[in-house]
Amino acid sequence: MVRRIHHVNFIVRDLDAAVALYERVLGMPVTRRDELPERGARAARFRVGESWIVLVQPTRPDGVPARYLAEHGEGFFLLSLETTSLDDALDALGAQMADGPSRRGADNWRVQDLRRERTFGAQLQFCVEERPLRS
Amino acid sequence: MVRRIHHVNFIVRDLDAAVALYERVLGMPVTRRDELPERGARAARFRVGESWIVLVQPTRPDGVPARYLAEHGEGFFLLSLETTSLDDALDALGAQMADGPSRRGADNWRVQDLRRERTFGAQLQFCVEERPLRS
Repeated sequence: MVRRIHHVNFIVRDLDAAVALYERVLGMPVTRRDELPERGARAARFRVGESWIVLVQPTRPDGVPARYLAEHGEGFFLLSLETTSLDDALDALGAQMADGPSRRGADNWRVQDLRRERTFGAQLQFCVEERPLRS
Repeated sequence: MVRRIHHVNFIVRDLDAAVALYERVLGMPVTRRDELPERGARAARFRVGESWIVLVQPTRPDGVPARYLAEHGEGFFLLSLETTSLDDALDALGAQMADGPSRRGADNWRVQDLRRERTFGAQLQFCVEERPLRS
């Protein structure tokens, strides 16, 4: 059902500083930047093989990213797994695993968060791309 | 330089319980299990596209995984990035980014940890496969 790691998100306080470091680690320029006002974040991402590594900086204190940063500090935020259908993935797993309804992610991504208290401490998410990826 | 996400590791307290959950999330049986006595851990992994998702349970209290679990709780442990050469990757980044010398990982993997205090809270690692992967 899950076909690939779609993206891995890391929360950072200073996006530009983190981008500079990741450009050196990955040996490539940042691929794309996104403003995500409805999520309370801005993001920068790198295409690494078939996956994205996404750096996320909170932009307002009441958003999920800011609350996660306040609670956990910088570092891993979530692992997003590409599936063919959010509904089928949730049906197979049980609806009680869903953390709220599906929502729009960056770009054309639609994501479904899973309840972190049921996934051994790691925030997991399913993801589908709703139309062909712009690049 | 970095070609793909080679593996993502998550620390768990109860490997069998976590494997059962991840089998349902990923829609596949666990691909492989490894005993890593020199690391103080046992692991189970899933092949997801071109990457591995690895669950790691500490097996002795003085190992790095156990200390990480004690400090951070269950959840994300590290992101391992496949590169063509550990030496070249470190040369490009600066040797002061290395957290110790390279070491053997599971299977035929050789890994080089980076210093977490320099990577915005996320433990990053470079990885090469030293001979063709057994499957």
